[in-house]
Amino acid sequence: MLKIGLLGAGRIGQVHAVNIVAHPQSELVAVSDKFDEPAEKLAQMHGATVRSSEDIIADPAIDAVLIATPTDTHADLLEAATAAGKAVLCEKPVDLDLKRALDCLARCEPHGKPIMVGFNRRFDPNFAHLKAAFDQGEIGKGELLSITSFDPAPPPVSYVKVSGGIFRDMAIHDFDMACWMYGALPDKVTAIGSSIVDPEIGKAGDFDTAVTTLEFSGGRIAVIKNSRRAAYGYDQRIEFLGSDGLLAAHNVLENTIEKITAHGATKAKPEHFFLERYAKAYQIEWNSFIEGVQGASPLPVTLKDGINALVVAEAAALSAREGRSVDIAKEILR
Amino acid sequence: MLKIGLLGAGRIGQVHAVNIVAHPQSELVAVSDKFDEPAEKLAQMHGATVRSSEDIIADPAIDAVLIATPTDTHADLLEAATAAGKAVLCEKPVDLDLKRALDCLARCEPHGKPIMVGFNRRFDPNFAHLKAAFDQGEIGKGELLSITSFDPAPPPVSYVKVSGGIFRDMAIHDFDMACWMYGALPDKVTAIGSSIVDPEIGKAGDFDTAVTTLEFSGGRIAVIKNSRRAAYGYDQRIEFLGSDGLLAAHNVLENTIEKITAHGATKAKPEHFFLERYAKAYQIEWNSFIEGVQGASPLPVTLKDGINALVVAEAAALSAREGRSVDIAKEILR
Amino acid sequence: MLKIGLLGAGRIGQVHAVNIVAHPQSELVAVSDKFDEPAEKLAQMHGATVRSSEDIIADPAIDAVLIATPTDTHADLLEAATAAGKAVLCEKPVDLDLKRALDCLARCEPHGKPIMVGFNRRFDPNFAHLKAAFDQGEIGKGELLSITSFDPAPPPVSYVKVSGGIFRDMAIHDFDMACWMYGALPDKVTAIGSSIVDPEIGKAGDFDTAVTTLEFSGGRIAVIKNSRRAAYGYDQRIEFLGSDGLLAAHNVLENTIEKITAHGATKAKPEHFFLERYAKAYQIEWNSFIEGVQGASPLPVTLKDGINALVVAEAAALSAREGRSVDIAKEILR
Amino acid sequence: MLKIGLLGAGRIGQVHAVNIVAHPQSELVAVSDKFDEPAEKLAQMHGATVRSSEDIIADPAIDAVLIATPTDTHADLLEAATAAGKAVLCEKPVDLDLKRALDCLARCEPHGKPIMVGFNRRFDPNFAHLKAAFDQGEIGKGELLSITSFDPAPPPVSYVKVSGGIFRDMAIHDFDMACWMYGALPDKVTAIGSSIVDPEIGKAGDFDTAVTTLEFSGGRIAVIKNSRRAAYGYDQRIEFLGSDGLLAAHNVLENTIEKITAHGATKAKPEHFFLERYAKAYQIEWNSFIEGVQGASPLPVTLKDGINALVVAEAAALSAREGRSVDIAKEILR
Repeated sequence: MLKIGLLGAGRIGQVHAVNIVAHPQSELVAVSDKFDEPAEKLAQMHGATVRSSEDIIADPAIDAVLIATPTDTHADLLEAATAAGKAVLCEKPVDLDLKRALDCLARCEPHGKPIMVGFNRRFDPNFAHLKAAFDQGEIGKGELLSITSFDPAPPPVSYVKVSGGIFRDMAIHDFDMACWMYGALPDKVTAIGSSIVDPEIGKAGDFDTAVTTLEFSGGRIAVIKNSRRAAYGYDQRIEFLGSDGLLAAHNVLENTIEKITAHGATKAKPEHFFLERYAKAYQIEWNSFIEGVQGASPLPVTLKDGINALVVAEAAALSAREGRSVDIAKEILR
Repeated sequence: MLKIGLLGAGRIGQVHAVNIVAHPQSELVAVSDKFDEPAEKLAQMHGATVRSSEDIIADPAIDAVLIATPTDTHADLLEAATAAGKAVLCEKPVDLDLKRALDCLARCEPHGKPIMVGFNRRFDPNFAHLKAAFDQGEIGKGELLSITSFDPAPPPVSYVKVSGGIFRDMAIHDFDMACWMYGALPDKVTAIGSSIVDPEIGKAGDFDTAVTTLEFSGGRIAVIKNSRRAAYGYDQRIEFLGSDGLLAAHNVLENTIEKITAHGATKAKPEHFFLERYAKAYQIEWNSFIEGVQGASPLPVTLKDGINALVVAEAAALSAREGRSVDIAKEILR
Repeated sequence: MLKIGLLGAGRIGQVHAVNIVAHPQSELVAVSDKFDEPAEKLAQMHGATVRSSEDIIADPAIDAVLIATPTDTHADLLEAATAAGKAVLCEKPVDLDLKRALDCLARCEPHGKPIMVGFNRRFDPNFAHLKAAFDQGEIGKGELLSITSFDPAPPPVSYVKVSGGIFRDMAIHDFDMACWMYGALPDKVTAIGSSIVDPEIGKAGDFDTAVTTLEFSGGRIAVIKNSRRAAYGYDQRIEFLGSDGLLAAHNVLENTIEKITAHGATKAKPEHFFLERYAKAYQIEWNSFIEGVQGASPLPVTLKDGINALVVAEAAALSAREGRSVDIAKEILR
Repeated sequence: MLKIGLLGAGRIGQVHAVNIVAHPQSELVAVSDKFDEPAEKLAQMHGATVRSSEDIIADPAIDAVLIATPTDTHADLLEAATAAGKAVLCEKPVDLDLKRALDCLARCEPHGKPIMVGFNRRFDPNFAHLKAAFDQGEIGKGELLSITSFDPAPPPVSYVKVSGGIFRDMAIHDFDMACWMYGALPDKVTAIGSSIVDPEIGKAGDFDTAVTTLEFSGGRIAVIKNSRRAAYGYDQRIEFLGSDGLLAAHNVLENTIEKITAHGATKAKPEHFFLERYAKAYQIEWNSFIEGVQGASPLPVTLKDGINALVVAEAAALSAREGRSVDIAKEILR
């Protein structure tokens, strides 16, 4: 039984808490949050205690921490936790600043502790199934990957301002998905964006709609479409064209009901947002983390993966700003 | 080039006329109808002449006739046309009275002329594809066939009264489909019905909603669902459960558009009624008739097939009336 | 917190145990089974104790029992448990013998304890959604209900012999679904069956493939198709034709992946069997039972409902045996 | 009855010939081709005569010509035909060289004759339905349009070399579709490409896989995915995200059959290539041309539209070559 400290009792921390508690080999012993109320509520619900992050990290009885705090604290907590000998599951992104993230990697690695970054979508059973089918050669060589990733509604502009922008905040999941599918970092990134959904987002210097193309070695391409608003909910799809065919992961719908009337045939919408759509993915993510920490299988998402996605995001932001393709090796990793 | 006489210039006669004219090996030379106006209009449109049925049948220059007149004239015209040496394509049903239909068969057969009954659905590319897949063993042994067959709206009660009833008028297509799929006549027929769509139909002694089960040798079953009303249009589907799987022919939709909004994901309705849904089937039916008459391939629907469907309809009507299963060999064909 | 005794530690008992334990307001305190091993294993896994059924029923500290024992013990345990003041959730069927089930109802009712029969499918979110849409009038008046209910593979003949037959054992779920949808018991039942899947099932006096039609007041019809074998898994669908349209509950597929190659476009099969397909339904069923026992809402499935389904099954078996429609009021409930 | 001269008796000329002949208000009187055999075969099949292009254009009895010759002859023939007072339907593209195309426009316009460019996809009933739904505001303001356009197999490299490249030859259809949907020419074009399908295509200086993003005024975006190879056939889809939802035009499948076995649920592939997929579109296109020439409705695709698509193609080719976004007003139309 692994004893777990949860840093961060917000929305995503609450999702993880349920899975930590439900897992037969993990136990939630401590919760921290900068606000007392959510921490206490969560601790009480699951029989844990409220403690400071420092205290949790320093406690030798705690085996692993889950970092679900605001982004700007991730790198510091990662470094402290690994230094203290903890296994860590850290929510994405590692940091909004690539340099800081690279430093974090350099400081954490020597401790040799298991670190996993929370790219939850890799654990979605549908996407995992698509990836497995691709790896088994079911569509031959991968040529053109398409990812559709729309949120139901834009976040408040106040959030946009501190989010790092659509590429680092939202598309980063899709960049990880593309790198994972191809098993590589792209060579070039080309992005465009606009703020057609909410002009205030544009005034804040960000986009709400964007298209990014990634060029991988050998002529392999990925294209990622992002929008901060799909009136019908959360649109999360993948299509992968290969030399022998196409694999598609369609949306998960709210139910299987179809109604046919004089007005047409109506089915349900996609699951509304990530809490619904990825509920099972979060469970599987936690299972994978536990298995990885126990050495039963390698950790499926590394800190390096987290940084790679950030590298692509950095390149995309630069590309969209300057209206040209960005060479990752020469301009981002130089 | 086969010279064709068309008997009957109503809705279905008009459909056939277009296909006769469009076929490179058939020519519409004469049209008859008990009403002058539609006959003249149709003849004029396609460069044919209006003549009486007797005259058309007697003309040695005419190779084949297509009987699209009211049902109660089918048997007489069939007999006259085959006696006169014509090949015949006759709309279903042969006659509402089984005994009359059997007499017709007995009188027509000796002439040895090609006769085909217009079970258009056999020529629907989807149903034909399903049948071919089944015959190729793609689902193993056939066990349970389900046919959904709903019209968009009930006919006027005046028509219902002379229609022969839902089993002889509407379900007869589905009975033919079931016999065709299994390549056999059923042993037993069990039917129930109600007049929930329009009580006036019930007062006229008919049903508007019915379910018929057919038991074929070896325990093979078919179930046919009929309704005179589907608010969304013409519902024409087949599902065939076999030992190795299931084959389904879904409806043909009006288009491929899907609209997804906060209210759900809406697709098009099925094609509205038989003229739209079976437009292609009627073309292929005519091609098959021409090929059969020219000896290029056997006629795919025989007069015997037309009578078999009527036998099932007779049994279904008796079953529904008496609330019990009807044995075809003992009670209908005795 | 309700203290629960679980009678029966077999496959379905194990499913319930997990949900009892996971529910915040129920606690699994005791397990009984005629075999020691499964009872001990289950009790240990969930921190409960193994006791005899009698002991559990007699224990005043236990609030409710869940009866998941072999069918022939259901009625006795129901009577004993309600007499001892327990709330009861009893797996279907109440008894294979209708008279015995009616006696049970007569004996249990006076105790006034909450009794719910485990028709899990009512709690399937898709079917529940369909029912709600129907009740809200989305397709107008219900006219023709169709239920497809196929198992992935036939049970062993040894089971078939004690099962009560396909109508009491398997179709009973669908009969409950039909009664629930229409909110009524049918007037007439007409069924046919065959043993085409496995002739040994026929030799044992049962069918493996059956079609049952139910006639409800006002001309409303339901048709139920059952097969003990669908090579592709568990096929559980409903279609409801109403005056204004059609509602369909499609199968739940294993995933959302589609692969398109030169051989066609392939999607996943339906969830394999009831444990997968109805996992969520069992959870919701348990929630509903707890809410009902606590008085928060009425119990959604009563003992009377369980008996009604049995009445239909009795009529179906008689109908299939005698090749005629069976009048429920005159022949079954007389 | 309009008398039509058909210039070009190749594959696409043959498609048009059938529609010209079938239309009640057009008559195919003359055919030209640089090769005698196809011209004679086509003329004979449809009762037309073989003549030279010059002769056809000079004949005052001919009302309209359809230009289906090789691309490098389009502009000259357009100019000659309009100068001779003919209405013209010209296959795309107007010319591979934008300057030449602009000159052609300048020379043709003064004659005031109806000219239509053959962007057949606008007449596909599905895309037309999507466009109409969009124009009626069914998804609100258009924000992100996605076009998937894959051919079943790459053309021979010999063709690639004279094709003008993937943007002018293949994507031009999609560029027209995007301009038509938004009712505008984009401001900026950004494209990338690779030759992963066939490296020989790369050696010939072209791409076989490409992604183009178009930026329209107000932040509206279109993204176009092209591949010269989809192992499953012709993939032609559109998705349009708007402020209120999404409209999608799915592929047209070969049939409606679904087969479900232990290996999954398989449906048909898309229609194989443009002759099958767009058969109906070519008919409707011809109808629209006839209506336009007769003044019944404006011509739905103008010569200007043909040039606009070429402008976008020019920009895309430049963008892909230089790895940067291209400003249409400043760089292409300067």
